[in-house]
Amino acid sequence: MADKPFALSAKILILDERGRCLVLRRATGANTGLWDFPGGKLDQGEDLQSAMEREVAEETSLRVRFVRVLGAAESESPTARIAYLVMEARRESGEVRLSEEHDAHMWVEPSELPGVALCRHFQPFAKDYSRRVS
Amino acid sequence: MADKPFALSAKILILDERGRCLVLRRATGANTGLWDFPGGKLDQGEDLQSAMEREVAEETSLRVRFVRVLGAAESESPTARIAYLVMEARRESGEVRLSEEHDAHMWVEPSELPGVALCRHFQPFAKDYSRRVS
Repeated sequence: MADKPFALSAKILILDERGRCLVLRRATGANTGLWDFPGGKLDQGEDLQSAMEREVAEETSLRVRFVRVLGAAESESPTARIAYLVMEARRESGEVRLSEEHDAHMWVEPSELPGVALCRHFQPFAKDYSRRVS
Repeated sequence: MADKPFALSAKILILDERGRCLVLRRATGANTGLWDFPGGKLDQGEDLQSAMEREVAEETSLRVRFVRVLGAAESESPTARIAYLVMEARRESGEVRLSEEHDAHMWVEPSELPGVALCRHFQPFAKDYSRRVS
């Protein structure tokens, strides 16, 4: 059987003015109850920047500035392989307002990120990021 | 001034049956003479998988199988910020045939990758990759 094609998901680690990271608790799907970063798959024909802006607006309603590339991750479902690109953004203004995809949010210190019940595919990234910035 | 938007570039670390990595020497542009991985920016409206397949075909003419996500990198030019997603692929068949974008190729052991005169933005990735697989 041929390998499943890779699809791209843009994830955004949003930092507040104290350097804390925004995580959102998933309210739907296979990872319900686990914590995730804002972001998601690119729509058909959508470019990276547009997808990041759309996802941040939809899932957090914050205004952010995109800063740099932080890392990558991967997951596999029965029907797809997802390649995640994780970008850093800084909150410019606004307060978090969730979409129906999530039911809670919190701002966590980078050093605490590895202790958060994140979606499994982001745990290696979280450990690595925490080590780099702590 | 607003930040330049990020554009995505898909890069592919192609391994041969002995686990050696394919690098290509750039024949054009700002990084002429430096070594690079096959791959490049997604065309307007193109998805990740299609872009990877197109770039590998255009720049190497190899048949490959895409295996996993390896990492990420970033560069900045006067006009753009580029986010690189680096994917691992395995050569299935074919011999390297270069496009006009490159004028040489070599297969290098992962342990030798940090010693190659790669484009500067891939040097941290190369060091990290070499450490992980050696």
